[in-house]
Amino acid sequence: MTISLQSILDAETRIGPYKIVTPLLTSDRLNQKLPFDLFVKADCLQRTGSFKFRGACNAVFSLSVLNKPILAYSSGNHAQAVALAARLSGRKATIVMPEDAPLAKIEGTRSYGADVVLYDRYTQSREEIGAKLAKEQSAELIPPYDDERVIAGQGTAGLEITSQLNSLQRELDMFFCCCGGGGLMAGTALALSEHFRQAKLYTVEPDGLDDTARSLASGKRQTNDPSARSICDAIVTPSPGLLTFPIVQSKAAGGKVVTDEEALSAMKTAWDYFKLTVEPGGAVALAASLKQEVIASHTGDKRKTVVAILSGGNCDQDIFAQALASPTLI
Amino acid sequence: MTISLQSILDAETRIGPYKIVTPLLTSDRLNQKLPFDLFVKADCLQRTGSFKFRGACNAVFSLSVLNKPILAYSSGNHAQAVALAARLSGRKATIVMPEDAPLAKIEGTRSYGADVVLYDRYTQSREEIGAKLAKEQSAELIPPYDDERVIAGQGTAGLEITSQLNSLQRELDMFFCCCGGGGLMAGTALALSEHFRQAKLYTVEPDGLDDTARSLASGKRQTNDPSARSICDAIVTPSPGLLTFPIVQSKAAGGKVVTDEEALSAMKTAWDYFKLTVEPGGAVALAASLKQEVIASHTGDKRKTVVAILSGGNCDQDIFAQALASPTLI
Repeated sequence: MTISLQSILDAETRIGPYKIVTPLLTSDRLNQKLPFDLFVKADCLQRTGSFKFRGACNAVFSLSVLNKPILAYSSGNHAQAVALAARLSGRKATIVMPEDAPLAKIEGTRSYGADVVLYDRYTQSREEIGAKLAKEQSAELIPPYDDERVIAGQGTAGLEITSQLNSLQRELDMFFCCCGGGGLMAGTALALSEHFRQAKLYTVEPDGLDDTARSLASGKRQTNDPSARSICDAIVTPSPGLLTFPIVQSKAAGGKVVTDEEALSAMKTAWDYFKLTVEPGGAVALAASLKQEVIASHTGDKRKTVVAILSGGNCDQDIFAQALASPTLI
Repeated sequence: MTISLQSILDAETRIGPYKIVTPLLTSDRLNQKLPFDLFVKADCLQRTGSFKFRGACNAVFSLSVLNKPILAYSSGNHAQAVALAARLSGRKATIVMPEDAPLAKIEGTRSYGADVVLYDRYTQSREEIGAKLAKEQSAELIPPYDDERVIAGQGTAGLEITSQLNSLQRELDMFFCCCGGGGLMAGTALALSEHFRQAKLYTVEPDGLDDTARSLASGKRQTNDPSARSICDAIVTPSPGLLTFPIVQSKAAGGKVVTDEEALSAMKTAWDYFKLTVEPGGAVALAASLKQEVIASHTGDKRKTVVAILSGGNCDQDIFAQALASPTLI
């Protein structure tokens, strides 16, 4: 099964009335310090504070059975996204969340009217809890990434970037996208590669949880060490998705890795130059785009166009304070 | 002299290729706590980090003499705006700034290539320094607000809000706008009142520096006590403008006042619900829209539409940390 550009265009029509067309921003002050022009796709401004609303909304509004309840498991951003999409469509939602998810995400999910069921992510299986609840409630499970409807929904971010770059009369040279399960990368890569055939598209992951980078290098889906930890809670997944990985593999130029410290510094960069609140996992693409190796790779007279997705902004206050106290990247 | 809607439409055409159409954002999570739907016009995402780029850009690109150097005096946001507009038009700029302006604004202004001349705002006259420099350099002075070109440029924010509300199929019921010299309020009020004739438009100022509120109440331009201080540096002016006040007077339903503490709390609200960095002066309109008296005034079944401008985001880190530590407004 492959996902076509048409399914992303259908998603655009379906969720157009609900999603925000988030701005593609650039900073004159930052660009002066770089050998390229950097644009950020500010999906932290999307409804529920992350890109996840795109996929969740497309999945929920694709359902044909009226009033079927919705179920999801998620560390937070998908949870909030599904909760709001369910409410907008008039459905009941139950969300299974790890008890150590950021408080802002748990409270956010409840505020959209969903029932939240907490579990211990190191001793309990969310899949088992989810399967039991789905059976009891005859509910529709909306997976966080390995789902055609979800991938197509995330792809609408790629359509928007294409249209925004077109109106700026710019080509895309390099694209950085955070990667957990790979839904956002798969969807946006499908949309972007259609129009910008020469663009180099990179996944970005936290150091030590670089399953996609290793999978791309080896050609086979790799898993992460279950004991690995990162501050980037939004993009911690055990392995690339079954549906997402073949798409990512066919489109990506490679996989980049950033440390937690680099993610925190990129949050500060987003605050300082773009006036945006970004969470650690939402800042990794920006961090990767500002690494010395990337900056050094930009030679030649013509200033190239680099896009990094700022994928989410749901951040607890103590982490944000830590980011502001970080050294600057650039 | 009155400024026509046509001059704002002309500004839109003139600065369209340079300005950002900033998003009009709403928060499902915040709206649930309110008896109305609140939208924020995120002009902190405008180039140079504030709405001031609109007016500065319109003034600079209105000049017919090529290569005429530019001069401005400003506590910071107008400074950066004029510096970038001058650079985009290929002109040299000199900016007279108070030596106690936020460091981020002084450095920002220098980063856009302008020469910065510092002065002591409590013992020296920026007008005298400016007049001397203007004569020496044969430079064009771009005033911060009392200028037809500047007011028309700021009005483009009102055109954008109109078009954004139209595409959401919404009327405007209530509008809050920060007010220093009154350029943004005058321009946006002209644009908004053309389309939304029933809307109530309010200026918002810091407590103790409420010259516009007192001027609106008395019908005559009032001045501020020169010893009054506020954390809202961006909107501290001695009195309403000669050009701006008659426009503000003809359009405003009244003048609101907020404390420094309320401005800091609104910065936290903008961070939490809208994922945006706003400076104290840029947050006063949001603060006013969330005051108990405003919330209590919204009765009836139909949820009304309230818009607050987030006018700037150029904030030093210590002030931002102070805002995050503030109590929440709502």
